[in-house]
Amino acid sequence: MKTNKDFIDFLSPHVNERRMGLLNKAIENRTRYMTVVLEDIYQPHNASAVLRTCDCFGVQDIHIIENTNKYKINPTVVRGASKWIDLIKFNTQENNTLFAINTLKKHGYRIIATTPHTNDVELQDFDVTKGKFALFFGSEMPGLSKLMLDNADEYLKIPMYGFTESFNISVSASIILHHLRLQLQTHKIDWQLTQDEKELILIDWIKKNIKHPENYIKTFYG
Amino acid sequence: MKTNKDFIDFLSPHVNERRMGLLNKAIENRTRYMTVVLEDIYQPHNASAVLRTCDCFGVQDIHIIENTNKYKINPTVVRGASKWIDLIKFNTQENNTLFAINTLKKHGYRIIATTPHTNDVELQDFDVTKGKFALFFGSEMPGLSKLMLDNADEYLKIPMYGFTESFNISVSASIILHHLRLQLQTHKIDWQLTQDEKELILIDWIKKNIKHPENYIKTFYG
Repeated sequence: MKTNKDFIDFLSPHVNERRMGLLNKAIENRTRYMTVVLEDIYQPHNASAVLRTCDCFGVQDIHIIENTNKYKINPTVVRGASKWIDLIKFNTQENNTLFAINTLKKHGYRIIATTPHTNDVELQDFDVTKGKFALFFGSEMPGLSKLMLDNADEYLKIPMYGFTESFNISVSASIILHHLRLQLQTHKIDWQLTQDEKELILIDWIKKNIKHPENYIKTFYG
Repeated sequence: MKTNKDFIDFLSPHVNERRMGLLNKAIENRTRYMTVVLEDIYQPHNASAVLRTCDCFGVQDIHIIENTNKYKINPTVVRGASKWIDLIKFNTQENNTLFAINTLKKHGYRIIATTPHTNDVELQDFDVTKGKFALFFGSEMPGLSKLMLDNADEYLKIPMYGFTESFNISVSASIILHHLRLQLQTHKIDWQLTQDEKELILIDWIKKNIKHPENYIKTFYG
């Protein structure tokens, strides 16, 4: 039986060597231990900036909650940045926020609201060893929904020492993802993708680097 | 002889109590151990975002190099964000970049280019204990000048693990300042302002919180 690994070995020679090296390196740095959820971000440039940051720090999955039409993300803006990450959209339910939270909980994620709260921890005190976690970000205004806050397991804030009260979402996400990524490495947590996950994503990436991938699929599977 | 401390004690009762608490707290978190230098940032919203970040992480001084008129920062955009920090502009010399570097070196700063380079260190390996440091940021394009790079003592980069090659300047500055601020605290470095510095800045801040401060100055100094 032909495996995904066989398929990768079959496709790889058709990708530029330097490029293939980049794909192989990037896949080793991808994680689903830490994931990002955007709730009703209606400024496309902010969403797009967060997607870029996720790519930079190896976050493979971004979950996008769209509760109202008016908040819908502009797909043309997101597309470019999302080529190398998996976008999971929640926009078909009556309550997409709750559905996203429950789905992520079912997959074993701690639900983290990134916002100041009476029970928050500061970023440097967040314990990455307690299991995989989903970081929820809301718009600068009005912020995360009450429903999200009521259903969060933990609350996380960036310590600030001046007069400015908040960062915009792309800055917040960057600070948090950079810091927690480093923590994952420091604590020697098993944050990498499984071999199966790596192979599936790699096949997807390789296809995006080949013209007419459907021809290769036909040849390989006969 | 009347001291700055006396002047502060004289002025303080005229500031709203909650506000005065905020000023006193913020001043304890200010630092000149770490400082920021912007070289020819011609997008006002980027400069403004960096200033906000500096305030958040307690960086008191921002140095702004303006080598060409076309790169001049829009003062109306910067003003709001710069109310609580000290802006030092370098725009009168033939070579403002070199003048800024030499001035900062004279004051004991390590000159750090925040850009990938053959001799760079990754952010997590940057040693904050080796003395105070000035972080130079350039525009996304064309980046820091060759002159700046040739005269830097050290090079610093944010590790990136994906396909995206760079962050915009406000994201870079936020990641770097957040991380290094934490390092200053972790290494128990003497990063705070001196008592003299604190008092001078506090007087400046208090004046900004009082209507007609000149009347108080007259009364106090007689």
